[in-house]
Amino acid sequence: MIPIADIYEARKRISRVAKLTPVLTSNSINLELGRKLFFKSEHLQTTGSFKIRGALNAVLQAPENAPGIIGFSSGNHAQGLAYAASISSRPAIVIMPSDSSKLKVEATKRYGAKVVTEGVTVENRYEILSKMIVETGYHPIPPFDDYRVMAGQGTIMLELLEQVSDLDAVLVPVGGGGLISGIASVVKQLKPSIEVIGVEPVGGDDTYQSLQKGERVQLDKPPTTICDGIRTIIPGEKTFPIIQETVDRIIVVPDEATIRAQALIMQRMKQIVEPTAAITLGAVLVDKDLPSNVGLILTGGNWMPQ
Amino acid sequence: MIPIADIYEARKRISRVAKLTPVLTSNSINLELGRKLFFKSEHLQTTGSFKIRGALNAVLQAPENAPGIIGFSSGNHAQGLAYAASISSRPAIVIMPSDSSKLKVEATKRYGAKVVTEGVTVENRYEILSKMIVETGYHPIPPFDDYRVMAGQGTIMLELLEQVSDLDAVLVPVGGGGLISGIASVVKQLKPSIEVIGVEPVGGDDTYQSLQKGERVQLDKPPTTICDGIRTIIPGEKTFPIIQETVDRIIVVPDEATIRAQALIMQRMKQIVEPTAAITLGAVLVDKDLPSNVGLILTGGNWMPQ
Repeated sequence: MIPIADIYEARKRISRVAKLTPVLTSNSINLELGRKLFFKSEHLQTTGSFKIRGALNAVLQAPENAPGIIGFSSGNHAQGLAYAASISSRPAIVIMPSDSSKLKVEATKRYGAKVVTEGVTVENRYEILSKMIVETGYHPIPPFDDYRVMAGQGTIMLELLEQVSDLDAVLVPVGGGGLISGIASVVKQLKPSIEVIGVEPVGGDDTYQSLQKGERVQLDKPPTTICDGIRTIIPGEKTFPIIQETVDRIIVVPDEATIRAQALIMQRMKQIVEPTAAITLGAVLVDKDLPSNVGLILTGGNWMPQ
Repeated sequence: MIPIADIYEARKRISRVAKLTPVLTSNSINLELGRKLFFKSEHLQTTGSFKIRGALNAVLQAPENAPGIIGFSSGNHAQGLAYAASISSRPAIVIMPSDSSKLKVEATKRYGAKVVTEGVTVENRYEILSKMIVETGYHPIPPFDDYRVMAGQGTIMLELLEQVSDLDAVLVPVGGGGLISGIASVVKQLKPSIEVIGVEPVGGDDTYQSLQKGERVQLDKPPTTICDGIRTIIPGEKTFPIIQETVDRIIVVPDEATIRAQALIMQRMKQIVEPTAAITLGAVLVDKDLPSNVGLILTGGNWMPQ
């Protein structure tokens, strides 16, 4: 797992920019669901998601002689990376699929990154990325399979442990596994009694299947789910061993539960969160074996009602 | 105006139930609009709006021998009144127009009130209300034209003055005028240098016209505006003299600006607010004469994207 000292250092490193996000609660949701839920609100984080934490921790450790930063993302990592590079005064190139949402491309440009979309697909992205790394000499920062990124994401859990003293479990959305690797590394080193539970959408349960099989399982195709932040088909090479070592179990959630959960968060808490964040409350709706005091990582809020 | 002592007493009276709501800020909105904006977040208040403050302050002063509480509302006052009565262990009847939104009727019932909707229209509401007061002996609590209600709403400004030290102006949505009467009473007694600015939607500027004319002006018909919380056609008998005495000016805002403002609050701040709350930011979008540090009362969040 990620050494706790690295996560403490990451916290110091990013503290000038990454916010200490609040933990929100809702009496009415607690009453209805018979639990005490603590929503760690990364949708209120700078750039609208937790991704700035890992991206910034990595950018601030990038080789000084690299002329810039480069990465690939269709989602929140793009904005996190662009902003992290910009406040570190380093140029950045972000490669995004040509069908990326205009809103996200615009936001990434607004943070000062050069965005490359022409001819980029999910299939040829690594080829394009490698070519551009060679051409530019820019330093690549991946969205999850990177120890600096995982350490940055782990800072969320350092905060949550200080903000809530009596957690029994924490629910974490799982895509490539960078977030849960950081979170679980903190829990298992500082308060191992807390259950670390991953959450995946139905059809996108690559980590669940991999844990069952004891090795990385690759899905045939990306799932059709509203949880667009976690449509991965295989856990990371570096994240999976950490997940095997530290994560207690995975809950797989159908989109219908996530949709109900997102509406509950909007109606009762007046917060806009992405489906990928709401899936954690979806897990509470479908799983009856959860303990009483549960932390939920609301990963992001970059979503607009139609 | 409302004596400051009454507002301090209201604060003590309602403090067990009404939350001290946070003041939210957005760097990106501030940068874009060139101001420092402080959003007093009553959409995060119990029952989803500020109305609980005035309703509870009034319920807790209702005659002890009244067998219950009664009121009329199509909106947030219904929920505030129902909840205030329920936590004071007094039965309540809320008369709502028969075309009220199902969501609001359900929420009002959930708080334990008996809801009467059959045959109720905006035209015959006072007739029905009077008849039921006589029949039941219940004590009526109006939505705005009541000194206890105004004192309760004023507690918002006591908090805001403590939370933000250097305000130049405060923007307040104006319907019947109960909220702004309470707010302005606090400002003019504690920090009269702050400009108190009312905000009304185009077509619903009864208070603006009344202030111009120096007497209460009644509009021909309720405005067609998305700001459904402030579709009044005449200022209150008790609120208008206070408004004349204490309010500096009114900004009239077209719905297009309010729609843009609501989207900005959702995109940048991840908060769900009603159009009636977003109109305050709409005023910042259309009025170029505002000073630098401005407080905005986000009145409520009982709204759902379609």
